[in-house]
Amino acid sequence: MKIGFIGLGHMGAPMALNLLRAGHELCVFDLVANNVENVLNSGAGQVKRAASVQELVSNGVEVIITMLPAAPHVKSVYLGPTGILASPIKGVICIDSSTIDPSTAREVAIAVHEKDGLMLDAPVSGGTGGAVAGTLTFMVGGTQSLFEQMKPLFAQMGKNIVYCGGSGNGQVAKVANNMLLGISMIATAEAMSLGVSLGMDPKTLAGIINTSSGRCWSSDTYNPYPGVIETAPANRGYTGGFGADLMLKDLGLATEAAKLSKQPVPLGGLAEQIYRTFSSQGHGGLDFSAIIKLLNPNL
Amino acid sequence: MKIGFIGLGHMGAPMALNLLRAGHELCVFDLVANNVENVLNSGAGQVKRAASVQELVSNGVEVIITMLPAAPHVKSVYLGPTGILASPIKGVICIDSSTIDPSTAREVAIAVHEKDGLMLDAPVSGGTGGAVAGTLTFMVGGTQSLFEQMKPLFAQMGKNIVYCGGSGNGQVAKVANNMLLGISMIATAEAMSLGVSLGMDPKTLAGIINTSSGRCWSSDTYNPYPGVIETAPANRGYTGGFGADLMLKDLGLATEAAKLSKQPVPLGGLAEQIYRTFSSQGHGGLDFSAIIKLLNPNL
Amino acid sequence: MKIGFIGLGHMGAPMALNLLRAGHELCVFDLVANNVENVLNSGAGQVKRAASVQELVSNGVEVIITMLPAAPHVKSVYLGPTGILASPIKGVICIDSSTIDPSTAREVAIAVHEKDGLMLDAPVSGGTGGAVAGTLTFMVGGTQSLFEQMKPLFAQMGKNIVYCGGSGNGQVAKVANNMLLGISMIATAEAMSLGVSLGMDPKTLAGIINTSSGRCWSSDTYNPYPGVIETAPANRGYTGGFGADLMLKDLGLATEAAKLSKQPVPLGGLAEQIYRTFSSQGHGGLDFSAIIKLLNPNL
Amino acid sequence: MKIGFIGLGHMGAPMALNLLRAGHELCVFDLVANNVENVLNSGAGQVKRAASVQELVSNGVEVIITMLPAAPHVKSVYLGPTGILASPIKGVICIDSSTIDPSTAREVAIAVHEKDGLMLDAPVSGGTGGAVAGTLTFMVGGTQSLFEQMKPLFAQMGKNIVYCGGSGNGQVAKVANNMLLGISMIATAEAMSLGVSLGMDPKTLAGIINTSSGRCWSSDTYNPYPGVIETAPANRGYTGGFGADLMLKDLGLATEAAKLSKQPVPLGGLAEQIYRTFSSQGHGGLDFSAIIKLLNPNL
Repeated sequence: MKIGFIGLGHMGAPMALNLLRAGHELCVFDLVANNVENVLNSGAGQVKRAASVQELVSNGVEVIITMLPAAPHVKSVYLGPTGILASPIKGVICIDSSTIDPSTAREVAIAVHEKDGLMLDAPVSGGTGGAVAGTLTFMVGGTQSLFEQMKPLFAQMGKNIVYCGGSGNGQVAKVANNMLLGISMIATAEAMSLGVSLGMDPKTLAGIINTSSGRCWSSDTYNPYPGVIETAPANRGYTGGFGADLMLKDLGLATEAAKLSKQPVPLGGLAEQIYRTFSSQGHGGLDFSAIIKLLNPNL
Repeated sequence: MKIGFIGLGHMGAPMALNLLRAGHELCVFDLVANNVENVLNSGAGQVKRAASVQELVSNGVEVIITMLPAAPHVKSVYLGPTGILASPIKGVICIDSSTIDPSTAREVAIAVHEKDGLMLDAPVSGGTGGAVAGTLTFMVGGTQSLFEQMKPLFAQMGKNIVYCGGSGNGQVAKVANNMLLGISMIATAEAMSLGVSLGMDPKTLAGIINTSSGRCWSSDTYNPYPGVIETAPANRGYTGGFGADLMLKDLGLATEAAKLSKQPVPLGGLAEQIYRTFSSQGHGGLDFSAIIKLLNPNL
Repeated sequence: MKIGFIGLGHMGAPMALNLLRAGHELCVFDLVANNVENVLNSGAGQVKRAASVQELVSNGVEVIITMLPAAPHVKSVYLGPTGILASPIKGVICIDSSTIDPSTAREVAIAVHEKDGLMLDAPVSGGTGGAVAGTLTFMVGGTQSLFEQMKPLFAQMGKNIVYCGGSGNGQVAKVANNMLLGISMIATAEAMSLGVSLGMDPKTLAGIINTSSGRCWSSDTYNPYPGVIETAPANRGYTGGFGADLMLKDLGLATEAAKLSKQPVPLGGLAEQIYRTFSSQGHGGLDFSAIIKLLNPNL
Repeated sequence: MKIGFIGLGHMGAPMALNLLRAGHELCVFDLVANNVENVLNSGAGQVKRAASVQELVSNGVEVIITMLPAAPHVKSVYLGPTGILASPIKGVICIDSSTIDPSTAREVAIAVHEKDGLMLDAPVSGGTGGAVAGTLTFMVGGTQSLFEQMKPLFAQMGKNIVYCGGSGNGQVAKVANNMLLGISMIATAEAMSLGVSLGMDPKTLAGIINTSSGRCWSSDTYNPYPGVIETAPANRGYTGGFGADLMLKDLGLATEAAKLSKQPVPLGGLAEQIYRTFSSQGHGGLDFSAIIKLLNPNL
């Protein structure tokens, strides 16, 4: 397939490489020249550089995948004066894998449809590790028929491909899941710290929680207390993994979406402020499980 | 074995019946006459009524099990002027299965040891259903040798028997687990309500969360959104299960323990206040997953 | 002076009437015909109706005052294809008295300046009562010289006219003050409810607080407990005053501004969620001091 | 008058000295020998050292004043085996000026009455500065006639002597006021930090708040932002004043009292956790306005 790929950062570059390896022909664009060269020089498959978004669109691509940092970039790349929709896109399938707020996702989808294009929102989880290994989870919003048609393409970049419903629902699923994740991580940090401060061995405590009703992914797979789970960032100084500032961004998307839909989220709101406090103290670059250090300065 | 059992309420009575069925000889006491009669009239095994705690102790019991509502009752039954320790208890094994704060549990254990008795704290989870079915989880604190010695006895009332470390650690494990549970339940209620308010189908959303990093017991086993998990209280009007007021009590134990050990628990503290708000509106008798109604008045 | 006035709702209409009574010539516009007629038929001074924003601008007005519900309306009226800036506005003084986020206020000010207009942001406090009585507080952002020039005009609609610094700072002052107000109101509701639940007379308690370090406007002027301050909404069923939904809007502006400037606001964030919970239960139309009912269902 | 004084720490010693200067005859006791010597060697008036609480009581004192760190000390000094109530105290007036929870205050008062003694709870505010200067505020609970009788004595140690109602109400007033104070201080820190981060001058912002609805003691008298109020601890590195750990203690009393009376206090609960986070980072010895540093690490 002839695919346009816009946004070749830490996540986008390995996704594009997986598509090249699967035999697709790529036309790529990124504002950062270096990002493009990394992909061009990888030696993987047939890839061409576009000088602009519009050159990419007019190159006869059947599918355009965008992987951008935040909503303003998505708006600009799709709706801006030199954006995707400034060229004819009749029949072109647009897939936005950026993580943005559901209402912007829906606004862009409507604009694409008005120009007779097709659109899926398809944010991912799994981090750069998953992007490299091709084991990402894709949460996909749009029509079910388009989802089924594109599923094989997603499967070349990921492992768990989930249909979430109409336009924007991919973003909704991600924002809801990640809000729950952010709260659970702080809650696990509190429960582990409390138990240890009262005299329990951290590994024993985690073992009990993980077979009881407090069990959660943050506890049984990614425990923030050092010495509990060998492969977790807590055992390598909270480096790598999913950054605290990325969690802060996702919590911000969640509370913004909650404001629009008038849904109270007291724990989600507090979780955002807790991560912002941690970030303002200069720790936003650590893995998000490092939040335990805010509550437990000895760690 | 000759066992004294004090406290025959909703939890204690079925636990005592399971011990009778296992062939033990019981001597029972409860301030509420009716509670005692229910056990006496059950026709299960050899059971005798004691007129007082002291009569029960002087009856030659090898083990005394207590199952009481809260710390003041435990203090009174063990340390009060007509309590267990007012009689000689040399060599008697005391097991307190009440859910109380760790510091009271330790205070009682020390007092028992000073009188040459032996002590385990062994709070349970699993609710009245688990008590009747004999499938409770016991979280046990005390010496490991005494734990091993009593394990067969616990196994006659429960399924999952976990050693948590020294005296009081059974209570620590329970309080840490239940604080995490209370937070996770509110967090799941927020995430489900947010996703649905933004247009997702609740079952689809839960399905995605349960295979992603937001996965937790409150989401995959006990989801508070109606229509998601057939057996959950959310599908029977939030009746039965684990009452909101019991969760409020456990969150109170958690924040009290956190205060003593100087451990910050911001989400635990807020969870307690949210459950108290719900309880003060008259809903404390509902299952604890009903907390979703506070945030989502349409449910 | 010849003044254009856009937005004649509950706040705008009495402000416009005060300007008419002060002898100014007004040209008015509102999308709701009825709003305009109320002012036209008031019999107060010389007033003319404009059929559109552009007709109003091209009418030779020296000053344009806008009083609109929220940021999207302000953006549309100033920056939209048929908005104020679509006509030449060289030398015209634009005053936006809407309450909006500081970053939109600054975006609009820059656009006005680019067209050689002048701009002040001047949100108010004091409610409809203050608008009618001409006793509003104006918090004004822009150059100091323009502020001094316009101060007499503000004084015809208000009593307390405060210079806050450069463009957008009027909005900053309002958002910071109202976030503090929203938190203080909930805090006063908690403190009064706690004291009364522990056996104190509400009036005695308020008297002590008001001469101690807990003293605040929410306690000494607008106490949410019935029977404490005769003139407060608490003594008339929480009607009138400043609506809970307006407080919710202002808390939303505060947390949004905090997100942009990366400033943690844990109590501000929780206050927003508490007001949203109250609003979602259907009470957003009550005075904002009614929040005490969420925490104290007997009131 | 012949007065027994128990507890001569930072607060008790200057209070005792003021009573000596007023001409009373004192009999003093403290477990810390050094504390006693400081008062004995002060050269102020007629003072005698008691070797024990019981020696003090049996010395013919008409009034006993206790000023102790926390509830366990108060319980021990009044109710312990060698405490005040172990001797006859018929007609003796007991005044407890410690800050403790209302329910312990009431328990002690009942015990004093049962031994035909008289009791007032009379916690203070004003800090060591107020204790030295004799300008403390006394919040007094007990019968009104006893309050009137003792008012002249309080006036020798303080300036503002307030009657709060029956036994324990002095503690209730203090706990409610200080919870409101703790919340207001964090709220002021958030509002000031938010405004400054958005570009306002701190002094201008405080000036606006202090004449608006956000006005509170924490803002107009004790502003946590440096450079706003000359005499505030913020201008001397947050030293002196009322320590963050003392505020943490008072918030703990407030949430404990709220638990007993089933009153939700969401902001009070969060304020406690925020102060505990600050304290656990090693800053509990700073003035309580230093909490702004947690939210604003640049200060």
